[in-house]
Amino acid sequence: MAVVPAVPGEDVKRFMELALKEAKAAGERGEVPIGAVIVKDGEVIASAGNRREEDQKTDAHAEMHAILEANAKLGTWRLEETTLFVTLEPCLMCAGAILNARIPLVYFGAQDKKAGAVTSLYSVFEDDRLNHQVKVVPGVLKDESASLLKDFFKSLREKAKAKKKAAKKAEALNVDEADEDGR
Amino acid sequence: MAVVPAVPGEDVKRFMELALKEAKAAGERGEVPIGAVIVKDGEVIASAGNRREEDQKTDAHAEMHAILEANAKLGTWRLEETTLFVTLEPCLMCAGAILNARIPLVYFGAQDKKAGAVTSLYSVFEDDRLNHQVKVVPGVLKDESASLLKDFFKSLREKAKAKKKAAKKAEALNVDEADEDGR
Repeated sequence: MAVVPAVPGEDVKRFMELALKEAKAAGERGEVPIGAVIVKDGEVIASAGNRREEDQKTDAHAEMHAILEANAKLGTWRLEETTLFVTLEPCLMCAGAILNARIPLVYFGAQDKKAGAVTSLYSVFEDDRLNHQVKVVPGVLKDESASLLKDFFKSLREKAKAKKKAAKKAEALNVDEADEDGR
Repeated sequence: MAVVPAVPGEDVKRFMELALKEAKAAGERGEVPIGAVIVKDGEVIASAGNRREEDQKTDAHAEMHAILEANAKLGTWRLEETTLFVTLEPCLMCAGAILNARIPLVYFGAQDKKAGAVTSLYSVFEDDRLNHQVKVVPGVLKDESASLLKDFFKSLREKAKAKKKAAKKAEALNVDEADEDGR
């Protein structure tokens, strides 16, 4: 396994709070609220939120944006000696990108029971058949991360419900008008 | 499973040949020779080669570039009703992106025993715990694809050997000069 950076406990909280801030900002833009931050030598070198709806790009997850930002900053596709913080457990695509980037350490918040590739459905970071392994620390500020997601999906459902109700009302009005026209 | 497009046999060969062309072009640019093509309704909508060294971006695999090109072409992160052709078995990152893009059908050439996520190390396209499955057809023009890769790595090794030999020769010359100086 590659050299794993040491991150002091108070920094872990601070960096995950930054990732949560990115997640909140994403939610306010109408995206599923997920945020990620990449740190090197105690400094944030990249931070991003989910932008899939805005970008309409398959790869626009928070982790991928953060990785690409770090690539540009460091001028290399290899991100050894960095640490990634993300509010939700990475999916297969993002976990694969983290492996390909040789990131040695990942902290994440909430588990993703439906698509998580790191502890939930797969444990790809511990696969010693691959040419790189990643140390993973789950559950950092997980309640804050999970609440953000829960509130977002609740609000989506409420909006969908309201829209349906409005559509029904409009339909009813049209029927009334049609009745009037037909009279 | 999503609706899987039907691709006539002669088209499968034709599209994989295009992917091989992209792979060859990548090799000529000094990249590991891998190429990918995305097809919709019988038409190529995206084609790309590996560009990781040139771009210095973690995600610069052929499949990812092709997916992003198709996203831009269709204006959406969803690539339902498309087919992806790639000369080498996708890694975890690319397989994850294919799943996230909802691509229903993938043809690939050679297997990647060290990192393949589709038939070699994992079978993520058949995982019914995920919200999408992908039909996969391995082994299309696999010898051509494998030869390209083999020749590329052989040439890399030869170059490294020649470099080492030249460095040794230069060192020997320096030693001789030092001997002369020291006389």
